[in-house]
Formats: sequence, C-alpha cells, structure tokens
Amino acid sequence: MTIKAYGAHAGDQPLQPLDITRRAPGAHDVQIEIVYCGICHSDIHQVRAEWAGTLFPCVPGHEIVGRVAAVGAHVSNHKAGDLVGVGCIVDSCQHCADCDDGLENYCDHMVGTYNGPTQDAPGHTLGGYSQQIVVHERYVLRIRHAEAQLAAVAPLLCAGITTYSPLRHWKIGPGHKVGVVGIGGLGHMGIKLAHAMGAHVVAFTTSESKRKAALALGANEVVVSRNADEMAVHAKSFDFILNTVAVAHDLDPFFALLKRDGTMTLVGAPATPHSSPDVFGLIMKRRSLAGSMIGGIPETQEMLDFCAEHGIVADIEMIRADQINDAYERMLKGDVKYRFVMDIATMNA
Amino acid sequence: MTIKAYGAHAGDQPLQPLDITRRAPGAHDVQIEIVYCGICHSDIHQVRAEWAGTLFPCVPGHEIVGRVAAVGAHVSNHKAGDLVGVGCIVDSCQHCADCDDGLENYCDHMVGTYNGPTQDAPGHTLGGYSQQIVVHERYVLRIRHAEAQLAAVAPLLCAGITTYSPLRHWKIGPGHKVGVVGIGGLGHMGIKLAHAMGAHVVAFTTSESKRKAALALGANEVVVSRNADEMAVHAKSFDFILNTVAVAHDLDPFFALLKRDGTMTLVGAPATPHSSPDVFGLIMKRRSLAGSMIGGIPETQEMLDFCAEHGIVADIEMIRADQINDAYERMLKGDVKYRFVMDIATMNA
Repeated sequence: MTIKAYGAHAGDQPLQPLDITRRAPGAHDVQIEIVYCGICHSDIHQVRAEWAGTLFPCVPGHEIVGRVAAVGAHVSNHKAGDLVGVGCIVDSCQHCADCDDGLENYCDHMVGTYNGPTQDAPGHTLGGYSQQIVVHERYVLRIRHAEAQLAAVAPLLCAGITTYSPLRHWKIGPGHKVGVVGIGGLGHMGIKLAHAMGAHVVAFTTSESKRKAALALGANEVVVSRNADEMAVHAKSFDFILNTVAVAHDLDPFFALLKRDGTMTLVGAPATPHSSPDVFGLIMKRRSLAGSMIGGIPETQEMLDFCAEHGIVADIEMIRADQINDAYERMLKGDVKYRFVMDIATMNA
Repeated sequence: MTIKAYGAHAGDQPLQPLDITRRAPGAHDVQIEIVYCGICHSDIHQVRAEWAGTLFPCVPGHEIVGRVAAVGAHVSNHKAGDLVGVGCIVDSCQHCADCDDGLENYCDHMVGTYNGPTQDAPGHTLGGYSQQIVVHERYVLRIRHAEAQLAAVAPLLCAGITTYSPLRHWKIGPGHKVGVVGIGGLGHMGIKLAHAMGAHVVAFTTSESKRKAALALGANEVVVSRNADEMAVHAKSFDFILNTVAVAHDLDPFFALLKRDGTMTLVGAPATPHSSPDVFGLIMKRRSLAGSMIGGIPETQEMLDFCAEHGIVADIEMIRADQINDAYERMLKGDVKYRFVMDIATMNA
C-alpha cells in the first residue's frame, strides 16, 4: 500500500512530500488512519542527523493519533473506528525483563517509530508524518478523550509519557515540591501532570516573559533561573526536579535546590554535553542525577487514562504538512506554545 | 589543657609537631586519650588547602580511636576506660530534620572533626593527629572489637562508614551485583563490607597488579577498567557501583555497566571535575549518578557493630607521627595497603 508522507532524503535537506509503503496488516497488526501527528524536538535532531545513525529517507513523527482502519485476525483489543494512538515505540523483543515489566522503552531491542530496524521497506521504520501506519497491537494505545480533543492528545504520546513516567517512578504526589525546568513541549506537560498529581509545582524558565503562561499551566510558582536571588530562596527545598531542557546548560544551580535525597531527572538529550556536575553538590546531600526515557506501554495507557480523567491535553498550534520546515525553525527559536501538531489531512491538499 | 599534635601552619608547609589546647570536658563531653588515628586522603586535600576554606594551624585526623579518660556529669553511655571512636563529625545542630533522622552528616551545621567552626581555641576544630580530644557524647562511638584490633578499627570511622552508608542506603544484599571502583583506603573497605552483606562483588582497578589483592579482600571478580573487552563482558549487569576514586576520570564506561535503574554513587571528591556524564547513558536505562558523604552517627555505630560481628577491620600500615609527611607522599602514589594509621604514642618519643 503506497501512501503520502513528509520526510527528508538527507540531513541537510528540507522535508518534502514522499510516497512510502506500509505492510499489509498481519494477524496481530492494527492499521491506523493517522489524523494528527505532534512535532517533537527529537524529530529535528534525527532528521537533521544531529544524533548518530539516522537512516534516509527519514519520515519523523512519534506522536500519532488516528482511527483504526482495520485489524488483523488475532487482534481483540482494538476494532475499526476506534480512536487510538502510537507513541515512540512500535516493537520490542517482548520477552526480556524490561518487556516483562512493561518497560518496553528500556528493552535493548526496542524499535523506534521511525529510524528503527524493520523488515518492512525500506529496512527502517517510517513515522507519523504520513497518512497511515501499521503497528503490532501491543504498541497501540486506546484514547478515551473526546474526539474534539484528538489533535491536542497527540503530544501526550511522547511529551506526555516522557514527563509522566519519571513523575510516577519517583512517586510524586501531594506534599512534594517539584521543579520543572524548561517550559516547552515537555515542560508544559510536566507542569500540568505534576499539578494534577497534587504536587506543589515550581516552573523554572530563563525567560521572564514565560512567567504568566507557566502559572496558567498550573505552576504554583515560577522562578527565572538566571536570577540568583530568586534561586537562592528555594535552596535545599525540592524533593524532585524534572529537567526537560534539551540544550546543554549548567546543572549545579539546580542541584543546590534539592533537599537531602532529592533527585533531578533529565528527560532532554542535548546534542553537546552539560557541564560536569559538581561532585560536592551531589555528595553533600546525597543527591542524585538521573535520566528517564519515554515510558512503557502499560504506563502510557495509564497516562492517557489519567489525562482523560483530569481533562489534560497539550497546548498546541496546528500546522499544515507543508509548513513543517518553518515549524522546525520556529521550534529552534522557542516560538511555539507549546507543541506543533500536523493536520495529516492537509497532505491531500 | 595543652597537648601534643601534628599539623601545618600553611598549605605549602609540611606537618610538624605543635602544641594545642583542648577544652575541659563539659557536662555532655567525653575526654578521650587518642591511641591511633587513621590517615585519610581528605587530610591531604585540606591541610594542603586544595579545597576551599582551610583554616590554619590545621591538625587533620578524623579516624580516631582511643580510651575514655573522663566523662562529664551528664554522660551515661560512656565511662572511663571504654574503647571509643570519633569519626568525621564532632557537632551538629541536633534539631533539624537531618539530625532527627540520625543523619548528622547532612546537617547544614555539621561540624567536622577538624577545620570546623568551634568556640574552642583557636576558633576551628583540631583533629586526631593529637594526644587527646574532647567531644560531645552524641558523636562518640562504642568499639566492640578486641583491643588488639584497635589500630585497624581506626579507618572504619571514615573509610568504613563512607562505604557502609551508601551500601545500606541503596539496600545492598544477597542477589545484588555490586561494583567497587578503586582499591584504596575506601575501596578496600567497600569490598569487605559489600562481601559481608552478601553481594556478588566486582572490584575495578586500573592496575593489573591489584588483581590478586582484591580477590583476597573478598571480591568475587576483578576487572581492569582500562581493558575495554573485560568491561564489555559486564555491560548492563550491575545493580550498584560504589565509586571511591578521588581523582577526576571518565564515568561513562561505568554507567554502561549498570542495569536498568542502577545507580553509581560517588564517595570520592576529586579536586578537578569528572568528565560530564553522557546523558544518553543515563536516560537509556533510567540510571542514576548519586553522591554520598560519610554517614550518620547511629549508622556509624551500626557499622562498627556489624564489623565487630563479621570480624572486619581495615588493612593498615602503622606509622610514627614523624613519618606523616612521607606517608602523604606515598598515599599520593597509591603506595599503601590500604590505610596508614598513626601510632599516637610516638608523639611522646
């Protein structure tokens, strides 16, 4: 089956319309008509070959929502017409300890929704900037939000689960003081989710102009991290800091804000290294620096259900498919509140 | 009361005999005749002013063992003649959350055994390279080892608790695979303690020559960390790595050895920063980099009792007080198995 997509033939070329093929659905597969796809910062890194190993042609996109078109003979959890989502993962080994624990995101054989190994043509996976996708049922999520919210649900599939998973893993809830560093695609979800979990949420931004917007997202307080006096007020007071910034920066000022036994978890992956953490900052209060990557499939479903129950969606700006290159440039300038979502129907225009 | 000590008048001067004074014991104080004092790498950093803030004259030493000479009127846990120890801490605020939790080592007002603030002359604390010390009973530990082992108990007060505390905090026990990086004063205790806790212990060294010695200390396996092939065998297999190296080095090869959710805890504080950790190495398996500093008073007592029960002491080389400057030079070359201990009686020679 040949369908329309948007992708690039090389790291230094803009995205353009492409024709790609999808496999016929197997017994465990779900064939999905994609309605919207969120635009993630990782898409830019990978399609521009800023991380190692990008395969071309590259069709990015791993915040996929749509409607089931058909299901294989052995699929029982999904049926034609259902609203569903696909996130960053379309396959894994299905039998290692990580898969058994529902943490397919940490499986050594996890297959990304794009740029991952596959037997399908062209030998690597092609993502959600496309009209259809065929995915094994295990990696297909049920969407319980109202259909009118569908576009704003798309970013939950990556930005949502990437922030939800560490908040849950580090057991955030009422009584905790939680920092969220960076108010972008990931950060704005981190604020909404930590707030809904009952934490006292402090948003950190480098930009005074984002103060009001962060409060509107649910932050209890906002700190401009370049202001040392504002930072000092919060010394040694945080249980947990979720750092969503995907640009290299100095981590030490944030360690100083953690209580004893506090953790700062990185979910952004910068192209160049952060400054080396000051060892004294870690040992003096038994602090930790951790990393977290997306989330497993069961917790992605749990996150979607939690968001449906709490009325949480992303704040989005819709674009046409042919606006993708401009959208990338705006994202690199931080000029989006807070996530672009591509209207896949515009590929037919 | 004037007593003999060894210390330095400036960071660029050798240690020499000094006369210092100790306060008369107050109602809660224990006056201790020091018998032995272990020599810690921190002593060198501080007496040479390699970390910020060294006050002079500086008398190092925080691995103190000795005999109670007298006790204040309100002291009930110690009596004259008891074998006791004093570690890195001689005071703290006694009413913060950290003190209430028995983690005086993390109290913001923790007073180090030397170079800490005090009302005693000369206005900062003076450590264990001295004939006597007067310490509040809260910070005095009971020693249940045989008296013949007393010298080899001294290093437990810093090297022992610094490695015991993180092993306990991260709940190491049977079924765990634990790495110990560096086979020096701290590392050799880490190997003994992790082994006694029932873990499978792998020692990491840069030096092939330490292989046999590490096995003798209780390591189940030894890996020469400069050998990439040897390292690769252990990829993604460790629950916990205790990194005792106090010299800046590349942390990433050790992260690669941690399982999902594994932690590497630093207990050494290098004078220059480690390389910046690769963020992908952290996020791909939800790994953590942590720090830990010494341990609290109750867990120091627990450690001493654990060591007495399991027959654990440090491996030591005894020196006379007047050999201290040579001992420092040998420590800087790694030429000690594994801890120097000063025989305080030699100050009277």
